[in-house]
Amino acid sequence: MKKILIINGPNLNLLGKREPGIYGSSTFETYLEKLREAYPEAEIDYYQSNHEGDIIDRLHSAGFGEADGIVLNAGAYTHTSVAIADAIRAIRTPVIEVHISNVHQREEFRHHSHLSPAASGIIIGFGLESYRLAVESILKKL
Amino acid sequence: MKKILIINGPNLNLLGKREPGIYGSSTFETYLEKLREAYPEAEIDYYQSNHEGDIIDRLHSAGFGEADGIVLNAGAYTHTSVAIADAIRAIRTPVIEVHISNVHQREEFRHHSHLSPAASGIIIGFGLESYRLAVESILKKL
Amino acid sequence: MKKILIINGPNLNLLGKREPGIYGSSTFETYLEKLREAYPEAEIDYYQSNHEGDIIDRLHSAGFGEADGIVLNAGAYTHTSVAIADAIRAIRTPVIEVHISNVHQREEFRHHSHLSPAASGIIIGFGLESYRLAVESILKKL
Amino acid sequence: MKKILIINGPNLNLLGKREPGIYGSSTFETYLEKLREAYPEAEIDYYQSNHEGDIIDRLHSAGFGEADGIVLNAGAYTHTSVAIADAIRAIRTPVIEVHISNVHQREEFRHHSHLSPAASGIIIGFGLESYRLAVESILKKL
Amino acid sequence: MKKILIINGPNLNLLGKREPGIYGSSTFETYLEKLREAYPEAEIDYYQSNHEGDIIDRLHSAGFGEADGIVLNAGAYTHTSVAIADAIRAIRTPVIEVHISNVHQREEFRHHSHLSPAASGIIIGFGLESYRLAVESILKKL
Amino acid sequence: MKKILIINGPNLNLLGKREPGIYGSSTFETYLEKLREAYPEAEIDYYQSNHEGDIIDRLHSAGFGEADGIVLNAGAYTHTSVAIADAIRAIRTPVIEVHISNVHQREEFRHHSHLSPAASGIIIGFGLESYRLAVESILKKL
Amino acid sequence: MKKILIINGPNLNLLGKREPGIYGSSTFETYLEKLREAYPEAEIDYYQSNHEGDIIDRLHSAGFGEADGIVLNAGAYTHTSVAIADAIRAIRTPVIEVHISNVHQREEFRHHSHLSPAASGIIIGFGLESYRLAVESILKKL
Amino acid sequence: MKKILIINGPNLNLLGKREPGIYGSSTFETYLEKLREAYPEAEIDYYQSNHEGDIIDRLHSAGFGEADGIVLNAGAYTHTSVAIADAIRAIRTPVIEVHISNVHQREEFRHHSHLSPAASGIIIGFGLESYRLAVESILKKL
Amino acid sequence: MKKILIINGPNLNLLGKREPGIYGSSTFETYLEKLREAYPEAEIDYYQSNHEGDIIDRLHSAGFGEADGIVLNAGAYTHTSVAIADAIRAIRTPVIEVHISNVHQREEFRHHSHLSPAASGIIIGFGLESYRLAVESILKKL
Amino acid sequence: MKKILIINGPNLNLLGKREPGIYGSSTFETYLEKLREAYPEAEIDYYQSNHEGDIIDRLHSAGFGEADGIVLNAGAYTHTSVAIADAIRAIRTPVIEVHISNVHQREEFRHHSHLSPAASGIIIGFGLESYRLAVESILKKL
Amino acid sequence: MKKILIINGPNLNLLGKREPGIYGSSTFETYLEKLREAYPEAEIDYYQSNHEGDIIDRLHSAGFGEADGIVLNAGAYTHTSVAIADAIRAIRTPVIEVHISNVHQREEFRHHSHLSPAASGIIIGFGLESYRLAVESILKKL
Amino acid sequence: MKKILIINGPNLNLLGKREPGIYGSSTFETYLEKLREAYPEAEIDYYQSNHEGDIIDRLHSAGFGEADGIVLNAGAYTHTSVAIADAIRAIRTPVIEVHISNVHQREEFRHHSHLSPAASGIIIGFGLESYRLAVESILKKL
Repeated sequence: MKKILIINGPNLNLLGKREPGIYGSSTFETYLEKLREAYPEAEIDYYQSNHEGDIIDRLHSAGFGEADGIVLNAGAYTHTSVAIADAIRAIRTPVIEVHISNVHQREEFRHHSHLSPAASGIIIGFGLESYRLAVESILKKL
Repeated sequence: MKKILIINGPNLNLLGKREPGIYGSSTFETYLEKLREAYPEAEIDYYQSNHEGDIIDRLHSAGFGEADGIVLNAGAYTHTSVAIADAIRAIRTPVIEVHISNVHQREEFRHHSHLSPAASGIIIGFGLESYRLAVESILKKL
Repeated sequence: MKKILIINGPNLNLLGKREPGIYGSSTFETYLEKLREAYPEAEIDYYQSNHEGDIIDRLHSAGFGEADGIVLNAGAYTHTSVAIADAIRAIRTPVIEVHISNVHQREEFRHHSHLSPAASGIIIGFGLESYRLAVESILKKL
Repeated sequence: MKKILIINGPNLNLLGKREPGIYGSSTFETYLEKLREAYPEAEIDYYQSNHEGDIIDRLHSAGFGEADGIVLNAGAYTHTSVAIADAIRAIRTPVIEVHISNVHQREEFRHHSHLSPAASGIIIGFGLESYRLAVESILKKL
Repeated sequence: MKKILIINGPNLNLLGKREPGIYGSSTFETYLEKLREAYPEAEIDYYQSNHEGDIIDRLHSAGFGEADGIVLNAGAYTHTSVAIADAIRAIRTPVIEVHISNVHQREEFRHHSHLSPAASGIIIGFGLESYRLAVESILKKL
Repeated sequence: MKKILIINGPNLNLLGKREPGIYGSSTFETYLEKLREAYPEAEIDYYQSNHEGDIIDRLHSAGFGEADGIVLNAGAYTHTSVAIADAIRAIRTPVIEVHISNVHQREEFRHHSHLSPAASGIIIGFGLESYRLAVESILKKL
Repeated sequence: MKKILIINGPNLNLLGKREPGIYGSSTFETYLEKLREAYPEAEIDYYQSNHEGDIIDRLHSAGFGEADGIVLNAGAYTHTSVAIADAIRAIRTPVIEVHISNVHQREEFRHHSHLSPAASGIIIGFGLESYRLAVESILKKL
Repeated sequence: MKKILIINGPNLNLLGKREPGIYGSSTFETYLEKLREAYPEAEIDYYQSNHEGDIIDRLHSAGFGEADGIVLNAGAYTHTSVAIADAIRAIRTPVIEVHISNVHQREEFRHHSHLSPAASGIIIGFGLESYRLAVESILKKL
Repeated sequence: MKKILIINGPNLNLLGKREPGIYGSSTFETYLEKLREAYPEAEIDYYQSNHEGDIIDRLHSAGFGEADGIVLNAGAYTHTSVAIADAIRAIRTPVIEVHISNVHQREEFRHHSHLSPAASGIIIGFGLESYRLAVESILKKL
Repeated sequence: MKKILIINGPNLNLLGKREPGIYGSSTFETYLEKLREAYPEAEIDYYQSNHEGDIIDRLHSAGFGEADGIVLNAGAYTHTSVAIADAIRAIRTPVIEVHISNVHQREEFRHHSHLSPAASGIIIGFGLESYRLAVESILKKL
Repeated sequence: MKKILIINGPNLNLLGKREPGIYGSSTFETYLEKLREAYPEAEIDYYQSNHEGDIIDRLHSAGFGEADGIVLNAGAYTHTSVAIADAIRAIRTPVIEVHISNVHQREEFRHHSHLSPAASGIIIGFGLESYRLAVESILKKL
Repeated sequence: MKKILIINGPNLNLLGKREPGIYGSSTFETYLEKLREAYPEAEIDYYQSNHEGDIIDRLHSAGFGEADGIVLNAGAYTHTSVAIADAIRAIRTPVIEVHISNVHQREEFRHHSHLSPAASGIIIGFGLESYRLAVESILKKL
């Protein structure tokens, strides 16, 4: 059984309450349940923090064997954190970068990602389905 | 039965021959066959051209009813074509932008996409699997 | 009788269908008819293509005697085509650059035109009337 | 009878005396007479000032009913005055921005206009005929 | 009794008429009356001009003793006038820079203020209350 | 009774000890006491942290009902934290951005604030009085 | 007898009172007297204004015969006024640009002059002696 | 016998007619004849197109064995086409980039070439002799 | 006996495991032991955290007497943290900035350090010896 | 008797032969003679070199007493030499920067001077008279 | 007999020893011999210096009659020396700029040449053959 | 016995006389003596020149065996010399870049070093002790 870790960054704990025009109105927990049902062959772990350092710590602890793949939506840290990008480079587990909204349709400062050059793959703009596609990419291949 | 159109842009006809270190060594046609087998519920059409104008013409002809979703790897035109981006904006069929390699690990000029703000979703860096994930996103949802 | 050639660039074949909030809802052909009626003293030829190379070919063929003036809305190629600008410089027929919408109220990348330094005159933002003013400028002078 | 106000900005009082290679050798007053003759259906008022504040004051006084359309050549203030651009935004009368020379063939700093995003339409590079085309655009439509 | 001078720059004479979505629909004069009532301990003088030079002249005349504090909303000159900034530096009376709207939520060119480095304090985005807070800052301290 | 939360960011715990030439020599606690005395009609809560994530957590906990207004001096995070700006956007309680010193008289990198476009109002450069003006703005209006 | 016009721009009326560390403590009038004594062979006229438009008007009136040379210290308008630069280009009398302080030792925004490309000569940083050197350059040559 | 392919890009079909001050007054065909005479040991093929896609197609067809060397003057596409640069990278035949005029003495936008990093060698500014030097470099070596 | 504190920032806990090509393959703890042996005259304390806020807290606690000198390798926070730079400025203990690798041979974003202007000295690119040189600089002087 | 040293930088030995349209057709030696005659009260020494290091050496040798003032036209080194600027800062003799042509009417790269922030005064664009004005400024004052 | 001067700039004396992966492993002297044999109709002089001033001196001495053509590889001075570019402009002998490696495949700072706008022709990336092609261009023409 | 060469660049011959606030008041020779005493196990050679070319020549002569390590303070050439950086790359002896002052606390143009990417290690801001630490790094290792 494959182990997948989903990490959500700052303000993503407010999904469902926060700017529903951009992020939709269902909570991440609701979506996570459906995701686990759809992929019974995977053990999907979940972690959320508003702290850059916590995300780095979690990447480290999952990066040398605990998980087979990491799905990371680093929220605003995507655009400002070289430290998280370095953590991705430092570990061995592949990390998929995901975004709920199409960041390229939003403010200029959301167009640049420090994480992309370090990520194994990048999925942007499919709403919460971005997470499912990332899980799919870890579990199945043609 | 859902109709999907895959459009490949310039130099992607050389897949398999061209810089295999970056693009892999199998041709797109071989991959396409596997893709059609994996998704029998879809009719997957394929078009390749090295001409910017041809890609625009094809987007127009598929954009008002012919296809349910378009998967577009515009190759180098991704970085230079406002005209293709405008074609995406002008039509009604949703367009998924895909890239085989992780463009953010390559030259600076490949980091910017004119198409991203116009695309419905963006998938980058999964090798040829980027196309499968795009097809998956059109066909299935949680 | 003066000969005028109107050239429309990429996606302008979709006028009437494409983003009507920006470009209006009547087709260019309908407008062209009214224009020909309003200026019976001119022979107004019309050409549209989504191909940069076609537009260059057409400028060449009209640029050494065939037409007395060219009205060019190069669409998105306005912002990316040095080759069309060079074609305007290379021919002898004067070329008027026109835009339907006020490009300066739209995205940053639409604010710069490669064509403007090569054009005889520039008309921006009058809706389809931009074409009439260009025709007027070729035919009449105080 | 439609009322049109033409406003000329700094140094345009020297038309005819100033750099004739760029601006031509006839005065604006001579041209204005011909313009009034050509459009007897309009009452064309004229104002010139070298003072940014005067131009703003005049836009205000004509902007809430006095005129049906304003033709503005703000000269060098085009490139430096956010205050005039704000005045155009603040009033209700539409303002057409005109330029005698093709500013895009001149120094880099003349390529950017603060006024363009606020203007109803923009006409550049037809010599003094730029003013006539602006008047034409206010008075007639297909 | 403390003397305070409020100076409003270009287009602020149109408050109430101008883009009410941004600036509100009451005139500045109405607000000024309430302000004077709320602070009977101050003599609040008021000056408005659309002329950069007038604002400089007024700063000079109030800057060496006439006023105890100046509240300045220089409007669009905020972003373009080094001369007003120099006037603030040249005089002895402290100047508070105020803005009605949150300029950082508007166009890029409104994000930079030439005046801020010269001002004693800066208050942005409280609507007309920005003026009251500036007056409060001059009159009272903990 | 209105509830106000004041949040101070990194290094502001050193007020009184840190660069007194820029920040003054009294501690924030001393000032806070005077502030509470001056505004007995408000319950003023106070929180300081050097951790970006803590500030986000605190904004979340106060942002959906606990406080009526938040006064935020995010210190250096003002210039680097998109995550705090997103937290301000995500919550419902209005946030006033304050700065003790005039950041525009200091290093270039202190001139840009990620928070300003998200803030309800901004107060800069009044020393510790910046906090009082922010409290005043929440409690009283003309 | 040669006629020379000295024009001083904004805030230079405060010379002697304004930032004496940068501009010295004597008034311009005192210096002007000494200058007239030193050059009895010239008629030296003097004009100061804080208004950009006034400076343009005065350049126009002196630019076609009234003066043999103009010495211009445009103060802060040096860095912001394309209109004054255009006035210098539009007239026939040569204009010498002068600055009291060494502008290149001050803020970045004072390093660029719109006037320099239009000026006949430029003299910077000699204190009030900059004016005398300009007068000297007009009156005498080897 | 070595096979060489010369490819000319947009507007180069007008050589002899187009801006003779920059490009000279003889046609390319006349020069080509002399070139073939001077190098009887080579079979020199020639292709011209105004279409970016055509140039890519031709590079592909000559790039895997048909030619021993390609001489490419991509005209304006030099400055805008990432797709042609990618075609050069994708094929195996070495490509020499040539320019007739010294592009570094012309407009800023002609100073940058997308093709140069992909080319085997670059020859600029020798008039039509640039082609001969390229041919020479393919055929002979010390 | 002198007290020295070494602080390591994010991902430096992985030294020995992380990208050995760049950072070497021995752990920091091993090196630290040798360092303590080589400098028996110093008490060398060590702290590592992936949290920006923790590093600030630690700088504060050591900055007013606890340590005589601080050796700081802030890892990726070097390039993004104004808050740590401000902490260095706020405390009294001198801080030496060190880097293991030559950051100027790596990605562009690693060339700029927010900390350098605040540091007492900077040592870059000597591998782990960078720490020893920093310790040496605190303990001995000619 | 005052001692003045004139230093000319690279290519200025060619004055009279080099681009006479920009630099005039008389040699510097001819001008120097006239200058010495006009100012018999000064001993004017002259040095020219094409070597950056020579100019620095000469500034050093004249900078601590040998000369009372230095007139420096560093030619192209003006725009590229931080080392000469540092030499000016390092010595005690004041240095006047001069230029024959108006560098601001020429190529962009000639608009910036590394020397200006270090110079005592700057004189630009008076032809060879720039040197006389510099000498005048050293010898006489009002 | 035609006279040609080859000038090599800094570090090119190390050819053969220096970074052979980029510059090859034969010395320039060996190549020069072959070149002289291949072109017996020319007298090929050779000069190398690491001093910018020496290169200027040598250009001057060969620039007014001594040589018929100069082949210049200015090495790193290509990217930093305005003075050498000015020397090329100042002399009459045409100068061909050559580079051994393809500078556009190397670091960003090697992409810009100060010399190119002044050179008669530019040859890049043919290894040592770049010199032969330059000699060829001087000696022979179709 | 290890051989070390210290090279000082332009204006460093003035140490002790030059801006003592920045560079201290003792000469380099005095310091050098102490350094030689402190490291009797090394033969420390010293060279100073204001000439870029001399420094390159000296690096070459010491770079292939003469010295075991080079300590280089290239002064202002640090910021402008690609040629010295190339010399460092071309030789085999490792070069340590040192700076006396903290260049990052000074003017913007001193923040960038052309040499750093080529250097073995970099030491900044320890006053003259920067040299000792560089010597230490060559002689001893843990």
